[in-house]
Amino acid sequence: MASPTTWVPGVEADSHFSIFNIPFGIATTPRDRNPHVVTAIGPYVLDLKVLLEDAGSESILPCLKGREYVFTNPTLNAFAELGRDVHRQVRSTIQELLSVDTKRPEVLKDNTTLREEALIPISDVKLYLPMQIGDYTDFYAGYHHAFGVGSLWRGPANALQPNYTHLPVGYHGRASSIVVSGHPIKRPVGQIVVDPTAEPKQPTVGPSQKLDIELEFGCFIARGNEMGTSIDVDRAEEHIFGYVLLNDWSARDIQNWEYVPLGPFNGKNFGTTISPWVIMPEALEPFRSRGIDIEGRPPLQGYLDVKRADSFFDIKCEIDLTTPQGSTTTISRVSTNNLIWSFPQMLAHHTLGGCPMRTGDLIASGTISGTKPSEYGSLLEICEGGKREVLLGGTDARKFLEDGDTVTFRAACGGPWKRVGFGECSGRVYSAHTGQAQRRDQ
Amino acid sequence: MASPTTWVPGVEADSHFSIFNIPFGIATTPRDRNPHVVTAIGPYVLDLKVLLEDAGSESILPCLKGREYVFTNPTLNAFAELGRDVHRQVRSTIQELLSVDTKRPEVLKDNTTLREEALIPISDVKLYLPMQIGDYTDFYAGYHHAFGVGSLWRGPANALQPNYTHLPVGYHGRASSIVVSGHPIKRPVGQIVVDPTAEPKQPTVGPSQKLDIELEFGCFIARGNEMGTSIDVDRAEEHIFGYVLLNDWSARDIQNWEYVPLGPFNGKNFGTTISPWVIMPEALEPFRSRGIDIEGRPPLQGYLDVKRADSFFDIKCEIDLTTPQGSTTTISRVSTNNLIWSFPQMLAHHTLGGCPMRTGDLIASGTISGTKPSEYGSLLEICEGGKREVLLGGTDARKFLEDGDTVTFRAACGGPWKRVGFGECSGRVYSAHTGQAQRRDQ
Repeated sequence: MASPTTWVPGVEADSHFSIFNIPFGIATTPRDRNPHVVTAIGPYVLDLKVLLEDAGSESILPCLKGREYVFTNPTLNAFAELGRDVHRQVRSTIQELLSVDTKRPEVLKDNTTLREEALIPISDVKLYLPMQIGDYTDFYAGYHHAFGVGSLWRGPANALQPNYTHLPVGYHGRASSIVVSGHPIKRPVGQIVVDPTAEPKQPTVGPSQKLDIELEFGCFIARGNEMGTSIDVDRAEEHIFGYVLLNDWSARDIQNWEYVPLGPFNGKNFGTTISPWVIMPEALEPFRSRGIDIEGRPPLQGYLDVKRADSFFDIKCEIDLTTPQGSTTTISRVSTNNLIWSFPQMLAHHTLGGCPMRTGDLIASGTISGTKPSEYGSLLEICEGGKREVLLGGTDARKFLEDGDTVTFRAACGGPWKRVGFGECSGRVYSAHTGQAQRRDQ
Repeated sequence: MASPTTWVPGVEADSHFSIFNIPFGIATTPRDRNPHVVTAIGPYVLDLKVLLEDAGSESILPCLKGREYVFTNPTLNAFAELGRDVHRQVRSTIQELLSVDTKRPEVLKDNTTLREEALIPISDVKLYLPMQIGDYTDFYAGYHHAFGVGSLWRGPANALQPNYTHLPVGYHGRASSIVVSGHPIKRPVGQIVVDPTAEPKQPTVGPSQKLDIELEFGCFIARGNEMGTSIDVDRAEEHIFGYVLLNDWSARDIQNWEYVPLGPFNGKNFGTTISPWVIMPEALEPFRSRGIDIEGRPPLQGYLDVKRADSFFDIKCEIDLTTPQGSTTTISRVSTNNLIWSFPQMLAHHTLGGCPMRTGDLIASGTISGTKPSEYGSLLEICEGGKREVLLGGTDARKFLEDGDTVTFRAACGGPWKRVGFGECSGRVYSAHTGQAQRRDQ
């Protein structure tokens, strides 16, 4: 059955990239080896550089007149910098041109030459890191994750630190090791204390034995704030360009030895994977939600007291683990709603003291877990810190990741023909003993 | 008396910028409002863009032929990327041209027109952030600082965490709020627990009452490493472009409430100041040192076991505090030697798990303190966490910084006519209640 909403062929009812999505990404295509801006519709990318060159900005996107370069750039930063009004106009125009009822079929629908040039099967393109990331911040807003991990270490009564319900706890992450979905992840070597009971503690150096994943939701900054100013929580959404999925790969044994008192470092900075498509806020508008109720939560400080109670999103995520033998098991299903702080609150807190955000900065939610093992966002929680195993297909089981394992996050919302999905955030682990350097894609 | 080493007039015996220094920086000049590359000699900057344009790369710097743009760029990144051999050649050539005995006086010494254009009083130029900083990492390698601060909090027996002598503890900092010397620093607002004894803890929101400084030594990366590879400790110096002074402004009250368990965040990310001149490793070569002896220190892991014992530097630093009334007091004098880990060790550790360094990344040492109050690198230590005051001129005294205070770090080494100095790393604190945004210089 053809899509009732778009004339583009082959758009299935469950495609992540319905006409209601229209995400932005960076790709090289068979015809153009310079990374540039594209969107996705069903099984195709629509090459926005080609579209704009052919149709002309004056004709279809006057808001980009004189700024056509934003679609020829190798990152989305210049486009993001133009501000949310422009993003909205561009997205609506694309939706109109792709619609079954397009009022301007001559631009693309009936323009066979342009269709052949601009609509390219996704399988024929290579996707890149969508933005040049200046700073990356990782929050810890997944309430059940923070509670669960805290319980493992300190028991439920002391699971959460006293600050946890008062402010969005976060730390600065490493921007240089953020890679796009598909990039392989080398198991990190690090200092590890094998016997935590021995005193004095004696670290050894070797490959992490506790390599883990963290399912997170990330947002990119469109326009930032000047140093010395802060972002008002009720205006914070206007600073958000869009959203991605993020895997904050974590080496638990390295992290556990290094992290006191200054936080995670080599346990995290060996690699962070994001999905290639930046999903626009407008696409997620129907999936707003109110976050979770937390009993006995203290009143919010004014600067965090966002007027819109529905500043969260309810997006269903899945975690697949594929073994080196090729069997795939969905090990978790969880909604992004399980956060104690929304992105507007994180942004208001991050800038409270005047810290400047810049276009392309990335902010991640922290690990998203639900309330039971089938909803946990990390193996640390699913396997209770190594006490039990998660069963995979056949006789396979895992406490932590093995070399050759591939972890794939997916997320989507909306019914048939109206799906808004993130595509995949995937990475395969390779051995710490591999000598060969793996180049970053970008 | 004129300098015995350079024909440039007005170079005093105690100038930070003797011919033995030749640092690199970024400036705009009265004739050229585009930031570009300069060096310093005595009271002048030498405009390297103008010099190269006039003399021609072929004639004076064949290693830059076809790459002259590195001196017209608004940051030193492109120059840094060329690698240490090129930096060494450029520095030697400049030294030769500025020498009293220059064999090529026609290039600059006797070229009146070029001298007038290229030698510009430092007071007539504006200096900028020298590099575009991708990632910023702050280590904690100041042994006496870590011990002193740990003692304040946990007593001397438990002052250092078990990992401290085994690995260079560090955290990812915020690159977007790094500013060049002279940029004003706004007192941050943040969540603060005024009464730490009350349970449950009740934070309020307001300007930091415990605004502090941290004297640090920073290094910039010339060429980095590919993701998934690590930097060998014995080759790490070849990755270092040069050095700066750094003030890691810290809001102790904000930091104290937020930092468990993920480390410092808003207590640090409101501003970090660096000195404008990048001092070349060759200039500091005569001031190598062996770091400090630490009793009972465990053996080094192989990857940290640097062959050169003298991978540290002995550079004398001073901290001046100038009150709003204009009286200046030197509140501390300390050597950069007081570190437990050298930069090669920090780099080897940082990349052990495959984290990629990129050109322009900044790595800071952590607060440098000696063994007594007159050698401490922060007010937290000098004033024992607020228990005592440091006396300034007249009746003034401080526990922490007040609005209008200016803090200036200086550092230099070497005898008369041979001084190698860093210039100043300075910033003035202004009120949290100032509404007006202060633009970053760059």
